[in-house]
Amino acid sequence: MWKTKITELLQINYPIIQAPMAGGPTTSELAAAVSNAGGLGMIGAGYMNPEQIHKQIREIRDLTDKPFGINLFVPSSYKASQEELEIGIRHARDIASKLGKSFDYADFPDYEGDYNVFNEQLQVVKEEGVAVCSFTFGLPSKESIQDLKELGIIVIGTATTVDEALLNEEAGMDAVTVQGSEAGGHRGAFKPEAPESLIGSMSLIPQASDSVQLPVIAAGGIMDGRGLLAARILGAEGVQMGTAFLTTKESGAQQVYKEKLLSSTETQSVLTRSFSGKLARGIENEFIRRSRDIENSLPPYPIQNTLTKGIRKLAGEQKNPEYLSLWSGQSVRLARKLTASELMEKIIKEAEKAANLIK
Amino acid sequence: MWKTKITELLQINYPIIQAPMAGGPTTSELAAAVSNAGGLGMIGAGYMNPEQIHKQIREIRDLTDKPFGINLFVPSSYKASQEELEIGIRHARDIASKLGKSFDYADFPDYEGDYNVFNEQLQVVKEEGVAVCSFTFGLPSKESIQDLKELGIIVIGTATTVDEALLNEEAGMDAVTVQGSEAGGHRGAFKPEAPESLIGSMSLIPQASDSVQLPVIAAGGIMDGRGLLAARILGAEGVQMGTAFLTTKESGAQQVYKEKLLSSTETQSVLTRSFSGKLARGIENEFIRRSRDIENSLPPYPIQNTLTKGIRKLAGEQKNPEYLSLWSGQSVRLARKLTASELMEKIIKEAEKAANLIK
Repeated sequence: MWKTKITELLQINYPIIQAPMAGGPTTSELAAAVSNAGGLGMIGAGYMNPEQIHKQIREIRDLTDKPFGINLFVPSSYKASQEELEIGIRHARDIASKLGKSFDYADFPDYEGDYNVFNEQLQVVKEEGVAVCSFTFGLPSKESIQDLKELGIIVIGTATTVDEALLNEEAGMDAVTVQGSEAGGHRGAFKPEAPESLIGSMSLIPQASDSVQLPVIAAGGIMDGRGLLAARILGAEGVQMGTAFLTTKESGAQQVYKEKLLSSTETQSVLTRSFSGKLARGIENEFIRRSRDIENSLPPYPIQNTLTKGIRKLAGEQKNPEYLSLWSGQSVRLARKLTASELMEKIIKEAEKAANLIK
Repeated sequence: MWKTKITELLQINYPIIQAPMAGGPTTSELAAAVSNAGGLGMIGAGYMNPEQIHKQIREIRDLTDKPFGINLFVPSSYKASQEELEIGIRHARDIASKLGKSFDYADFPDYEGDYNVFNEQLQVVKEEGVAVCSFTFGLPSKESIQDLKELGIIVIGTATTVDEALLNEEAGMDAVTVQGSEAGGHRGAFKPEAPESLIGSMSLIPQASDSVQLPVIAAGGIMDGRGLLAARILGAEGVQMGTAFLTTKESGAQQVYKEKLLSSTETQSVLTRSFSGKLARGIENEFIRRSRDIENSLPPYPIQNTLTKGIRKLAGEQKNPEYLSLWSGQSVRLARKLTASELMEKIIKEAEKAANLIK
């Protein structure tokens, strides 16, 4: 039951990948615990600089000799109108004032800068020879993919539609993660024709699996052994779980965030563009409600993300969940307070139990 | 593998319910074929008058001695502003003119009328002693539910969230259909707090199953044996399939509609309020695109539905899929051109094959 194309490809015991959640949750302890338990731990390195990446890879290597992976954000061009910038800055100032602080908004990331960061991140991945490198928000160049593969690094892309899965295959990826509409955090959509593709996992997994030769990893709404087994039956060779690992002891998510997840329901998990300029799913709070009317007039990612960074940091310091980005999938009622290895063990037992049920 | 709480409750061989798609697709031939093949055929009677319902029940009884069911729409109060009515009428006239016709828009359904129709429909169900009666768009009174149950009629409600599932349980339903965001046709949401609840099946099925004692029937994105088995593993005792049966030989869907389904993809299945005033999922066409900018200013259901009825009828006569409501779920790539009994047989074989896969 546990031998799949993904366990073979990644050389792991169970086809369970801990989602690479950028911005803090994926501590070295979390990634190492998942890998030690037979899954694949991942570093969400999208917002990290080369030094931070080097450091975390070495920390994880001190904690496990099992394979683990890293995820990078593929940059793409963006442009904000003067009006969007003004709306974004006014809104950020307004919200910051509610937290008793004023911010200066002079520096915006620029396109070239993004590409430089991405190339530096890639360089670290190659230097360190990380076992697995996955990508979100687009496809790196075919040359970059080939470079990684020649170093024996497994490359995995992200897709939200069948067409995006096919583009990942064409680009030379070793596997593709298909992100159902249930998934927490940022939407990985990158095809301009379907920027808001919200395909449920029950539809996306079988249609993607039928359409590509690549092994498919299912993400979105999977929190336990039932979800894992259901995804396998629908055609996935493995699963990627984010929200499920957010509430584990080792996760770097803040305590107030973990508590919010453990007491939320599926209808509280909503889509918003307000934190980063890119569509993402999280628990509704004051920040989201206050941004509702203008969220489609805000600057695009990553400009809006930069604008709200100080606010989110401050809310964290103040332990105020109302102004944090509380990324969460739609299966949040199934979140559990466990260690990562306890969670892995439970998922495996639940899947085995569910398999017996339908014999 | 095939004995579930739903097969026992409904006295059928396989836990497969053909969705009661109102407006034409659920012919007597389709419902009877599904019941004869061991599933539960259903009449989508939401828009039918008592005579039509009597007639169809008798037709099906000539074709099968197996149980079958019927679905009714629970009315609720509604009110359109003068502005909404004007926008709706102007838009309907504009679209009708593209089809070379002008319509008169004098008569609107009224609240009392809706309740009278519903009570008459219920009366027929009781007189005929239909085996199963399901409800969409809300809950009938507890008295109505008790009346049906006393006559031995199995009652099934519809929910799009855990809270709605709990309300169905509280109302005394025998089972509840949980409609994932992948589902084609109208959203069955009825709780005013979450009017657009779009929970994916991968999230809705386990969370609803964990929360109610009632047997859960999963709907949304399920097209084959893989979907059936995955839903079972997630906690459902049965499945309801709509789009899968739309393209069968016996379905009353028009030929142009069937052909459109057989050539569409998951991203072409979009949400729209434009046909009826109520959110629904179907294949994007000219009608939807032309309504995009104003769809939130149109009158509510069922007024908008009445306004566009003539247009849809005319488009059907002209075999023009661009102005028909092409309801479809997100798994439309999996649609097949088969007879209903061939489809049933395939689903069962696929589920058995998928069960072997994970042994």
